[in-house]
Amino acid sequence: MLGRLNHVALAVPDLAAAVAAYRNTLGAEVTEPQALPEHGVTVVFVNVGNTKIELLEPLGECSPIAAFLAKNPSGGMHHLCYEVDDILAARDQLKAAGARVLGDGNPKTGAHGKPVLFLHPKDFFGTLIELEQS
Amino acid sequence: MLGRLNHVALAVPDLAAAVAAYRNTLGAEVTEPQALPEHGVTVVFVNVGNTKIELLEPLGECSPIAAFLAKNPSGGMHHLCYEVDDILAARDQLKAAGARVLGDGNPKTGAHGKPVLFLHPKDFFGTLIELEQS
Repeated sequence: MLGRLNHVALAVPDLAAAVAAYRNTLGAEVTEPQALPEHGVTVVFVNVGNTKIELLEPLGECSPIAAFLAKNPSGGMHHLCYEVDDILAARDQLKAAGARVLGDGNPKTGAHGKPVLFLHPKDFFGTLIELEQS
Repeated sequence: MLGRLNHVALAVPDLAAAVAAYRNTLGAEVTEPQALPEHGVTVVFVNVGNTKIELLEPLGECSPIAAFLAKNPSGGMHHLCYEVDDILAARDQLKAAGARVLGDGNPKTGAHGKPVLFLHPKDFFGTLIELEQS
């Protein structure tokens, strides 16, 4: 079921400073910031060739990464996103195996415009897993 | 400087349970456990096509992931490893830019038999970064 790693999401408190560190200090290729108000984040992609690193800064009052940054004020690794061929089949298989899907269990449209689901980190050893239809 | 994402390392308290979750629940291809006593971990690789997920369980008295698991008993995302063409040139460039290299600043032989360095997570927004000579 688990396909390629689509991205690693890192929550950061200051996107401009993070962009400077990745672009100037680490010499990486970094995109311009994109505000995604409907997802509560501003995002920048770091292209590392085989996958993407997403730097996420909270946007608006109800950002889904606000609680994480309150607990980890310097930032940190927020989630891993894997691609799946069929997100509904993946969901049903995961639920049958006892894994908990966050929210109401139905895929939402993710930041890339594709259906996504999140799995409970307690079922995967503290790692928040996003599944994205490929 | 920053090349492809070689792996994402996840620290887990119980490798057998984590292998079962990745193999059976997530349907991923998982290798047999490898004990690496000189690195203080037992490791399993989850092959996701474009990169690897490494599941790490502490091995021995002085495991480098023991403190992380004491703080995060369920486990969690431990570090990201990027490939670089020339690790000494990368180190010198990073130090010149003010980034802190952990330890004595000299590359060590990593779990894949190649020279590696770790960068201070405080310089990269809470993410521990490993660089591996490709």
